[in-house]
Amino acid sequence: MKARIYVTLKNGVLDPQGKAVHHALDGLGFAGVADVRVGKLIELELADGTSPEDIDGMCRKLLANTVIENYRIEQVEP
Amino acid sequence: MKARIYVTLKNGVLDPQGKAVHHALDGLGFAGVADVRVGKLIELELADGTSPEDIDGMCRKLLANTVIENYRIEQVEP
Repeated sequence: MKARIYVTLKNGVLDPQGKAVHHALDGLGFAGVADVRVGKLIELELADGTSPEDIDGMCRKLLANTVIENYRIEQVEP
Repeated sequence: MKARIYVTLKNGVLDPQGKAVHHALDGLGFAGVADVRVGKLIELELADGTSPEDIDGMCRKLLANTVIENYRIEQVEP
């Protein structure tokens, strides 16, 4: 089975990478961009029967820094 | 309006970050992880009426390296 983890910065947390991308888009002439936030997308290929609790544990222990980041788990059935 | 861009490495492209995460998950005792790939999730806050072609242009010119990365655009209507 597959799982996708979406890791995004919490609101209010400064995102220098997003700021840099925003600035670069402006420089390329793309008007109308109000804000850019950059997060992570982690694709896991897991053994069948891996429990949602295990996946949640992976996120809390390693994949996301829950002090400043939110995460969302999406399970993709085969 | 909002748009989310999902940037993932193409198949066959080596992903050292994913390998490192995989190794770390093994070290934490999470068995049954077969593969890990790490990509990017870019959230854009755009002026209403930004055309899909503009968003595609941002991806091709800046957000994704189309030599080694695929991207997928998801528009989120307000």
